[in-house]
Amino acid sequence: MKKIGVAILGLGVVGGGTYKILTEHRDFYKNTKGIDIVIENVLELDKNRALALGIEESKICTDIAEICSNPEVDIVVEVIGGIEPAKSYVLAALNSGKSVVTSNKELYCKYGHELEKAAKKNRAGLYFEATCVGGVPIIRSMLDNLQGNVYSSVIGIINGTTNYILTKMTESGTDYSSALEEAKKLGYAEADPTSDVEGFDAVYKLSILSSIAFNTKIPYTEIYREGISAIDGADIAFGKQLGYTLKLLAIGKNGKKGIEVRVHPTLIKSTHPLASVKDCFNAVYLNGDSVGDVMLYGRGAGAYPTGSAIVGDIIFCATHSNHVYSTFVNTETAATDTKFVKNFESEYYIRLSVDDKAGVLSKVTAILSKCSISVAQFIQDGEREGDKASLVVITHVTKENSVKKAVAEINATGIANVESVIRVIS
Amino acid sequence: MKKIGVAILGLGVVGGGTYKILTEHRDFYKNTKGIDIVIENVLELDKNRALALGIEESKICTDIAEICSNPEVDIVVEVIGGIEPAKSYVLAALNSGKSVVTSNKELYCKYGHELEKAAKKNRAGLYFEATCVGGVPIIRSMLDNLQGNVYSSVIGIINGTTNYILTKMTESGTDYSSALEEAKKLGYAEADPTSDVEGFDAVYKLSILSSIAFNTKIPYTEIYREGISAIDGADIAFGKQLGYTLKLLAIGKNGKKGIEVRVHPTLIKSTHPLASVKDCFNAVYLNGDSVGDVMLYGRGAGAYPTGSAIVGDIIFCATHSNHVYSTFVNTETAATDTKFVKNFESEYYIRLSVDDKAGVLSKVTAILSKCSISVAQFIQDGEREGDKASLVVITHVTKENSVKKAVAEINATGIANVESVIRVIS
Repeated sequence: MKKIGVAILGLGVVGGGTYKILTEHRDFYKNTKGIDIVIENVLELDKNRALALGIEESKICTDIAEICSNPEVDIVVEVIGGIEPAKSYVLAALNSGKSVVTSNKELYCKYGHELEKAAKKNRAGLYFEATCVGGVPIIRSMLDNLQGNVYSSVIGIINGTTNYILTKMTESGTDYSSALEEAKKLGYAEADPTSDVEGFDAVYKLSILSSIAFNTKIPYTEIYREGISAIDGADIAFGKQLGYTLKLLAIGKNGKKGIEVRVHPTLIKSTHPLASVKDCFNAVYLNGDSVGDVMLYGRGAGAYPTGSAIVGDIIFCATHSNHVYSTFVNTETAATDTKFVKNFESEYYIRLSVDDKAGVLSKVTAILSKCSISVAQFIQDGEREGDKASLVVITHVTKENSVKKAVAEINATGIANVESVIRVIS
Repeated sequence: MKKIGVAILGLGVVGGGTYKILTEHRDFYKNTKGIDIVIENVLELDKNRALALGIEESKICTDIAEICSNPEVDIVVEVIGGIEPAKSYVLAALNSGKSVVTSNKELYCKYGHELEKAAKKNRAGLYFEATCVGGVPIIRSMLDNLQGNVYSSVIGIINGTTNYILTKMTESGTDYSSALEEAKKLGYAEADPTSDVEGFDAVYKLSILSSIAFNTKIPYTEIYREGISAIDGADIAFGKQLGYTLKLLAIGKNGKKGIEVRVHPTLIKSTHPLASVKDCFNAVYLNGDSVGDVMLYGRGAGAYPTGSAIVGDIIFCATHSNHVYSTFVNTETAATDTKFVKNFESEYYIRLSVDDKAGVLSKVTAILSKCSISVAQFIQDGEREGDKASLVVITHVTKENSVKKAVAEINATGIANVESVIRVIS
């Protein structure tokens, strides 16, 4: 039986989960895949953490060089996260001819091109299913299954923390801070939640997914980003009333005018399959020219779901004799002929606080009309605060810049103030 | 650039779709996959059908031997359907060293073991993503992505025709025959719809999917089958009232007592992700021990979605230098230690027509209780037909045989009659 030696760099949540999956399923993989996966080394500075998992002391390393020079190691699993030392370790492993399986979205997003060059040079494998959406089999599906399609869009709920917070706010009417606190208590949000709630995590993942989908590098710096920390419960409630659910969506589109990539809160029609993706669940909704609409749904994070993706890559790497590289993706920049659309088109939800007197509504609608924005739905709220009333508008498809212009003009009137602008998918 | 020669056997709906995808995307595949996919031959008795697609006359064959002896052909796509001549053609192709990509679920389900033996002997590839659920990337995801999991269940809406009919019945209150007629008009049901509506199509697919999931051959003959042709609109309406949606589900489970495989109408909780899979859409809901719940959703049939799966297999076959065989799956029978659970456990919906007089309800509940069936929900219908009333019961989890026994005893009372029994997933 073919023996596959694995080294795990980092025994945090995902590293520990991967270790447990591999050791507990060793016989299962022997029987069903015909390979014996043996953990030869772990790299972990906290020796007790490794010992607590039952790892023999002789297998615990603190220096990547020990792993690179161990001829028993075939595949190095990098689950440290962040750029350094992860990047140097991955490059060292690849340059010593080891294949690498990584869950590190930031590293792969920012330096995938360097890693892949090293992998190709050394004929080593580089697998990264676990970088995006945990256990959801999105990357291999795009690379090895739906790869005959020209994709027009990739839209995802790809961050579990924010989806948990928004689900709580939607279902219990909790405000943002309370929902965030609850997420922290349950371990769904980190002590410093910035990367999740401000959309950075989703930006890294969208960079990876849209690069694969659109066959050109989509640098994360091209992605428009807006988080959920400023979301007001009122907008979730008005959205509901109008038939929409608020989600943090990562949106990649490829059309005649170019590529659009953006991460922002979005009111999505409540009947859309993505609207019913709740709590920590994630999903990616793709449209390909042959396959049509496809959605992949599951747990986007966690020791075992992400471990499942890592183990899937390990077995794939071990059972396929050649490694396929997505050359065109892993350049540093987009292809020179790639156009990024910044003034994109969307429907919009606009909530205004208006002076409660005659003539205000006609002034607001006149400005919208002047900016070529036509109104699809409309609510004037019955409840008033003092002499102010709420006015909620859902527009037909219009341009981002037209909305910006209208917002500035409305605010300049002195009788109406735009409280929120949220993009809409009907 | 590597040239890949393809021959397509059969230019029906899927064959024609595959031909169009390959020819229209030829440059795209050159640019993005680095391979030039060339259609070298088609096997089609109706020459005009081939000519209408723009295929050169010299490429049209009527004899499989021409294709087997053409050194330019690397991959043979079988989209004829049925057992013969498809089986002989596939075996001939494999035995001449060609790899085969097939969408033929009946063939792969019944003779996969023979086909795979021939493939292995000749070191040829055998790919079958298109046999199940059209464009939904389920098979490669199970084989090459979630393959580190021990699956406890695979539950799917894997037949588009029946899902369309049930969606119509649910949403418009149409009866079964009218919904079937509408499906025929739209091309969603065949002139003879037996294979779809009686669940045979779903049984073939469940055999394939559960064999992969449970790492042992699940012969289709072991699968319990019940179609939708006897479904009464009343049960859909009562189900709705109780919070359930009626779907034809294919259910595979693997637990301590053994493997359960069954295709039957099921009332599934309306909040379950599968309940919102509508019209011709299909979905498979998996549970793996590491990944947890995963759902893959998309179009389960049609020229382009199924063509997408075929083209995905062609490119995968062309870009991976070794073919991996799932040896343990493709035996003719299940492993000798496999146990199939026939007296399975489920919740049940039972609708009775009862004499509208005192004492009937207590008699019915006494029988249920005697058969160890406990009641979870209960409706006595207000509308009466003559001196009969409807009584609807949803049970807690109980055994199939207990329900059968209770039904026989209730019918024997002469004062109550069981009109329908539908399994339930809460």
